[in-house]
Amino acid sequence: MKKNSSNTMALAPNTSNKRETVCIFGTGDFGRALGHKMIQSGYPVVFGSRSTQTSPLIPKDAEVLSHAEAAQKAAIIIIAIQRQHYNFLTPLAEILHGKVLVDVSNNLKINQYPESNAEYLAQLVPGAKVVKAFNTVSAWALQSGTLDASRQVFVCGDDMEAKQMVMDIVRALGLTPLDQGSLLAAQEIENYPLQLFPMWKFPIFLSLGLTAFFFFYSLTRDVIYPYVYEKEDFSFFIAISIPNRICPVLALILLALVYLPGVFAAIIQLYRGTKYRRFPDWLDKWMLCRKQLGLVALAFASLHVLYTLVIPIRSFVRWRTSNQIVSQALNNVTESLNITNAWLSDSYLALGILGFFLFVLLGITSLPSVSNNVNWREFRFVQSKLGYLTLILCTAHTLVYGGNRFLSPSSYRWYLPNTYMLSLIIPCIVLVVKFVLILPCLDKPLTRIRQGWERNPQYSE
Amino acid sequence: MKKNSSNTMALAPNTSNKRETVCIFGTGDFGRALGHKMIQSGYPVVFGSRSTQTSPLIPKDAEVLSHAEAAQKAAIIIIAIQRQHYNFLTPLAEILHGKVLVDVSNNLKINQYPESNAEYLAQLVPGAKVVKAFNTVSAWALQSGTLDASRQVFVCGDDMEAKQMVMDIVRALGLTPLDQGSLLAAQEIENYPLQLFPMWKFPIFLSLGLTAFFFFYSLTRDVIYPYVYEKEDFSFFIAISIPNRICPVLALILLALVYLPGVFAAIIQLYRGTKYRRFPDWLDKWMLCRKQLGLVALAFASLHVLYTLVIPIRSFVRWRTSNQIVSQALNNVTESLNITNAWLSDSYLALGILGFFLFVLLGITSLPSVSNNVNWREFRFVQSKLGYLTLILCTAHTLVYGGNRFLSPSSYRWYLPNTYMLSLIIPCIVLVVKFVLILPCLDKPLTRIRQGWERNPQYSE
Amino acid sequence: MKKNSSNTMALAPNTSNKRETVCIFGTGDFGRALGHKMIQSGYPVVFGSRSTQTSPLIPKDAEVLSHAEAAQKAAIIIIAIQRQHYNFLTPLAEILHGKVLVDVSNNLKINQYPESNAEYLAQLVPGAKVVKAFNTVSAWALQSGTLDASRQVFVCGDDMEAKQMVMDIVRALGLTPLDQGSLLAAQEIENYPLQLFPMWKFPIFLSLGLTAFFFFYSLTRDVIYPYVYEKEDFSFFIAISIPNRICPVLALILLALVYLPGVFAAIIQLYRGTKYRRFPDWLDKWMLCRKQLGLVALAFASLHVLYTLVIPIRSFVRWRTSNQIVSQALNNVTESLNITNAWLSDSYLALGILGFFLFVLLGITSLPSVSNNVNWREFRFVQSKLGYLTLILCTAHTLVYGGNRFLSPSSYRWYLPNTYMLSLIIPCIVLVVKFVLILPCLDKPLTRIRQGWERNPQYSE
Repeated sequence: MKKNSSNTMALAPNTSNKRETVCIFGTGDFGRALGHKMIQSGYPVVFGSRSTQTSPLIPKDAEVLSHAEAAQKAAIIIIAIQRQHYNFLTPLAEILHGKVLVDVSNNLKINQYPESNAEYLAQLVPGAKVVKAFNTVSAWALQSGTLDASRQVFVCGDDMEAKQMVMDIVRALGLTPLDQGSLLAAQEIENYPLQLFPMWKFPIFLSLGLTAFFFFYSLTRDVIYPYVYEKEDFSFFIAISIPNRICPVLALILLALVYLPGVFAAIIQLYRGTKYRRFPDWLDKWMLCRKQLGLVALAFASLHVLYTLVIPIRSFVRWRTSNQIVSQALNNVTESLNITNAWLSDSYLALGILGFFLFVLLGITSLPSVSNNVNWREFRFVQSKLGYLTLILCTAHTLVYGGNRFLSPSSYRWYLPNTYMLSLIIPCIVLVVKFVLILPCLDKPLTRIRQGWERNPQYSE
Repeated sequence: MKKNSSNTMALAPNTSNKRETVCIFGTGDFGRALGHKMIQSGYPVVFGSRSTQTSPLIPKDAEVLSHAEAAQKAAIIIIAIQRQHYNFLTPLAEILHGKVLVDVSNNLKINQYPESNAEYLAQLVPGAKVVKAFNTVSAWALQSGTLDASRQVFVCGDDMEAKQMVMDIVRALGLTPLDQGSLLAAQEIENYPLQLFPMWKFPIFLSLGLTAFFFFYSLTRDVIYPYVYEKEDFSFFIAISIPNRICPVLALILLALVYLPGVFAAIIQLYRGTKYRRFPDWLDKWMLCRKQLGLVALAFASLHVLYTLVIPIRSFVRWRTSNQIVSQALNNVTESLNITNAWLSDSYLALGILGFFLFVLLGITSLPSVSNNVNWREFRFVQSKLGYLTLILCTAHTLVYGGNRFLSPSSYRWYLPNTYMLSLIIPCIVLVVKFVLILPCLDKPLTRIRQGWERNPQYSE
Repeated sequence: MKKNSSNTMALAPNTSNKRETVCIFGTGDFGRALGHKMIQSGYPVVFGSRSTQTSPLIPKDAEVLSHAEAAQKAAIIIIAIQRQHYNFLTPLAEILHGKVLVDVSNNLKINQYPESNAEYLAQLVPGAKVVKAFNTVSAWALQSGTLDASRQVFVCGDDMEAKQMVMDIVRALGLTPLDQGSLLAAQEIENYPLQLFPMWKFPIFLSLGLTAFFFFYSLTRDVIYPYVYEKEDFSFFIAISIPNRICPVLALILLALVYLPGVFAAIIQLYRGTKYRRFPDWLDKWMLCRKQLGLVALAFASLHVLYTLVIPIRSFVRWRTSNQIVSQALNNVTESLNITNAWLSDSYLALGILGFFLFVLLGITSLPSVSNNVNWREFRFVQSKLGYLTLILCTAHTLVYGGNRFLSPSSYRWYLPNTYMLSLIIPCIVLVVKFVLILPCLDKPLTRIRQGWERNPQYSE
C-alpha cells in the first residue's frame, strides 16, 4: 500500500473499509447465531425470511427482507434452512444465478439421502455456485463463544473462487477452514458431525469381544473350578482379580496387534518384490487404526497398573497374608529368603514398570499437539523403535511372571491354560517374525523395495 | 499469476518484491525486539526516536530518524511507548493523519485507566486508524525465538483494512492473529496479559473454602475426639489420613457441581417453556467454568489415588497390621474369610478404579489439542455420557465404601457424621434429578424446547 | 466483490475459476505423491520427465511432457529430483528464467554439502527464483492422508512474491506454511528432517551419565558391601531397589538443574549491572533446554513413584515383613506406636505426593496445546512459582526421608554417604541462593536491571 492511497482512504473511510454484505436465508437458531457472529466480525448481514417482521431474537444490526430482496443485496447467500424446504428456492433461480450459495445443513442419519444436501441444492439451482461449509459448527458454540470442540470448518465446492470467498469468511470468524476439494466431498462432510469415533469402532468392538471371552474363561478357571472341586466361594474375584487378569492380557494382545500389520506388510512386499501394489483392503484398514488400537491397549495397561497397586489394601489379601503369618507363627517356622523368587518377583515388576512407562510415553507422543511438533524421523523413531521396545518389555514381563509355572500341571485346570499363556501367542509371533525380518538377508532387499526398487519392474519410467 | 507477469517480475525483482516499510516509535526493549523480528521477516524497519544516534542495541539494518521523518516513511507506525508519553504524538497529528497506528502497550493493573490505551491513542490522534495488537507477546520471547507461551496475537480496530494490514504482519512474523472486533475490545485485550487464570478463580476459591471446612471437620472427628476421650495422639493424621479424607470428598462434590448447573438449566427451561430467555447471571457464569471445576475435581481425585496407594507403606499402617497379626497369633486365633467384607472391599476399590479411569479420560479429552479433533457429537458424548457415568461410578464407590456403616452409631462422633456421608448429598441430588429428567414425560418436552419449540411463543417469526 | 462481476463470472466460469498450473520435474515417489495431492486440491499438474511415457503410477489427470515443454506450461516448477541430478537443469536455464523453482530435496546426513541444496540450485539456475519447501513432508503421509506427524511446512526464499505463491499452495493442500526468511535458512530447513530430538540430547546424555554413576555407587553400597561383610546375596536389588534409589536422586538433581541457570543469570546481571550483555554461550544453551531437563526429571520422578508403590507386593518385602512379625510373635512382643516415626513416615510421603502432583501439573502445562492457551503472566507463574514450590517440596521430601539418619554412622559404608545425601547438594544450593536473591536489597536492583536500567549505561539512547 502506498502512502497516498492510505491517506485518501482515511478521508473516505466508508468506501473501501466495508466487508461484503452476506445474506442468510432462514431465521432459525443457526441462521441467527451465524448472523450474530458475522456482524461481530464486521460483515453487514441481511436475512431472507418468509415474514419480514423482525423479532427480538434477530441481531439488531441485521436487515430482514423477503428472500428475493435479500438475495439481491449480497453475492454470498447462506442457506440456513432444512433440506426438505429447499424447494422454495426453485422460483428464485433467476435471482440466485451466479451467486455463491453456502449449504450449512446437516442430516439426522448417516447417508440419509442418495445425494448430499449440497449436491441436491446444486441441482435445484443450477446457475449458482454451491459451497458446503459451517455444518460442523454448533449454533450454541457460535453464540456463547466457547468453541471447546473443533474450530475446524470443512469447506468444499466446485468453484474455486466461490470456495475462496467462503474460506475468507470462515477465517474472519476466527475459525479454521479446511479445503476438502470438489462438491463430491459434501457427502462425507455432511456425515462427519454424525460420526461417533468411527476410527475407534474396530478397536473397541475387538476389545469388547476379547474381554467377554477372557472374562468367561477366567470365571471358569478361577471361580467355577474351585467352587466345583473345593466348594470355595471366590465369587468376589469378579470385582478385581478377574479384571486384573483380563486387562494385562488385552493390553499385550492389542499392543501386538498394533505391530502385526506392519509385519504382514513387510512379508507381502518381500513376496511381491515391489511396493507399488496396493495392500489387501483389510490390511489397509488395519494399518489406519493402529493408533487407536495402541491407545485402547494403553487404557487396559493403565487399568492393570491400578488393579495391581491396590492389591495390598484388598480385604481378601490382608486376610490371606495375616492368616499365613499367623499359621507360620503358630508352627514356629521362620522361612529363609528364596533368592530365585526374589529375583523373579522383582524382575517381572521392574519389566512391567519400564514397559508401562514407555507405553505412556508412546501415548503422550500420539497427542495431536505433541506429534505435530516432531519431524518424521522422530515420529518413526518413537512409534517404531520405542514401540517395539515396549512390546519386548511387556512380553518379557509376562514371560517372567509365568516363570516356572508354564510346565506345572497345576496351571491347567480342566485342561485350560492360564490366560497369560494365551496372551503370549501373538506377541511372540510378532517378535519372532520381526527378528527374522531384520536379518540382513531380508532387511536389505526390503529396504531397497521400500526405496522404490522392483524385482520385476512392470512399468518403465 | 500469468507467466508473462511472472517473467517481467523477475527482470525487475526490486519493485514488487519488497514488503512495506514499517515504522516503530520508541527504541525500548519491546520496540527493538519487534524491529529485529520484522527485519528477519523481510520488512524494512525505521525507528522513530527522540535522539537519532543509533545505539549498538538497535538492529543494524534499521534506520533511526526523528519521529516526524520516520513516520513519513511508512504507512504503519508501531507505538512502542508507554501510555504516559503518548502526549508527544499530538504535535505529529498532521503527519500521522491516515496512518495506521499500532498500539502495543500494556498497563500495570487491570482497568487501570477509564478508557483503554488504544482508545486514548485514537482520541489523541483522531485522523489515524488505531489498531491494537502485539501486547500479549513478550519481548524476550520475540528475541530468543522460544515462543513457549502463546503465539496468539489479539488484534482489534475500527478500520477493517488497517486491521487486515496488521494481521498480515502478524502472520509474516510466524504468529497467529485473532480478530477481536472493533476498538472497543481493546480494554479486554489490554487486560488479558494481566490476568492470572480468571476462569480458575471461582473453582479454586471454592475448593480452598471447602478444603478448610473439611480439614477442621476431620480434625475434630479424627484427632481431637480421640485425644479428648481416649488420650491418644493421632496428630500425624494431618499428613496423610486427613488429606485422604478431604480429597475424595472434594473430588466428588466438585464433580457433582459440574453437572448441577445443567440440571438447573433443564428445570428452568422446562418451567419457562422456552429456551429463548437468558439464564440468570450466576447460572451462566457457573456453566462457563464447568471445565475448570471438573479439572480441579480431577486433581483432588488424583491426590486421593496417590494417598490411598501409599497406605501400605505408611509406618503407622505397618505397625497396626503387625500388631493385629501378633495379637492374633498370641491368642491362637485363625479368622475365616468374611465373604461380605471381601465383596465390599473389592467392589468399592473396583468402582473407584473405573471411576478414576473415566475421570482421567475426561481430563485428556479436555486438552485443547484433543478436543479440537473431535466433532460436536463426540464432544457431547464424552463430556455428557461418560461424565455422568463417572459421576455414577464415583458416587457408587463412596456408597459402597460406607457399606453398612451408615447406620452404625460409632460413625457419629459428637453427632458429626463421617465426611463421606456429607460428600454424598450433592451427587445424589444431581443423579436423582437427572434420572427424573430423562423420564419420557419430561425428556420429550425438554428436547422439543431445545430444538426451538416454545410453549407460549412470544415472537411470531 | 460487486454483484455484477459475480454474475459475469458465473457466465464464464472457466476463465477465473482455475488454479495456476504447477509443473513437477521428476516422477519418483515424492513427485507423484505431491502431484496427486495437488490435483485433489484443484491444481492442474504437468510432469516433466526424461521419458514421456505415462506410467500407471502417475496420477491420471496429469500430463507428462519433456522437461522443457512442461516448464513452459507453469510459473511454478517443483524440482522433485535428487541433488546429484540437478546438472540437467543447466541447459534449461533459458526456459527456467524467472520461474519459481521449489526445492523439495533432503540429504542423507546433516550438513552433507557445503551449501544447501536450494542454494546450489539457485547457483545452477541464477535467473530463477528458488524457494525451499515441502522437504519436511513425507510422501507416504501425503498419499495416505494420515498426517500424524507435522503438518508444518517450512518455507524460505529470497523472493518475497515467489515465497508467497508457494505458501498459498501449501495452504491449499491443507498444510501450514512457516516462513523461515531468506534462502540462507535452507541449510537449517534441510537439516531439520534429519534431526533426532536435538534439544533432548544434552538432558538425556547428562542423565545417562548420572544414572551410570549412581548405579555403580549404589551397587557398591547396597550389594557389594553386604556381600563382602555379611556374605548376603542381595543381587536382586538391581531390579527394583537400586533403580528406586537412582530415580529420585536424578529427578531431584535434574529439577534443580532447571532452576540453577536462572540463578546464575541473576547473579551475572547483578554483577554486570545491566541486562544488555549476552550471557556466556554455555548458559544460553543451558537455559534453552530447561524444558527438556524438567521433563526428563519428571520421567525419573514418575518411575520413582511406580517403583515405590510396588514395594508392598515385592516377594522380598513380603518375606521380610512376615519374618519380622513372626519373630515378634515368637518373642511375645507388642510394640507401641512410635509417634515420631509415624510423623516422619507420613510427612515424607505427603511431601513426596504433593511434590509429584505439582511436578505433573508443570509437565501438563508444558504440552504445546496447553502452553499456547495461557498468557505470559500465567506461563511464568506456573513455570517459576509452581516450579520453585515443586523444588522445595521435593527437597523437603528428601530431607525428611533422611530424618535423623544424616549423622548416624551406619549410613556411611566405606565412607560413602547415602545417595540421597548427594542428591541434596544442588537443590539446597539453588534454594539458598534463590532465597538470598529475593531479599529486598538484591531483588530491587535486579528488578530494575531487568526493566532496562543500567548501572553504568554505555549507550545513550
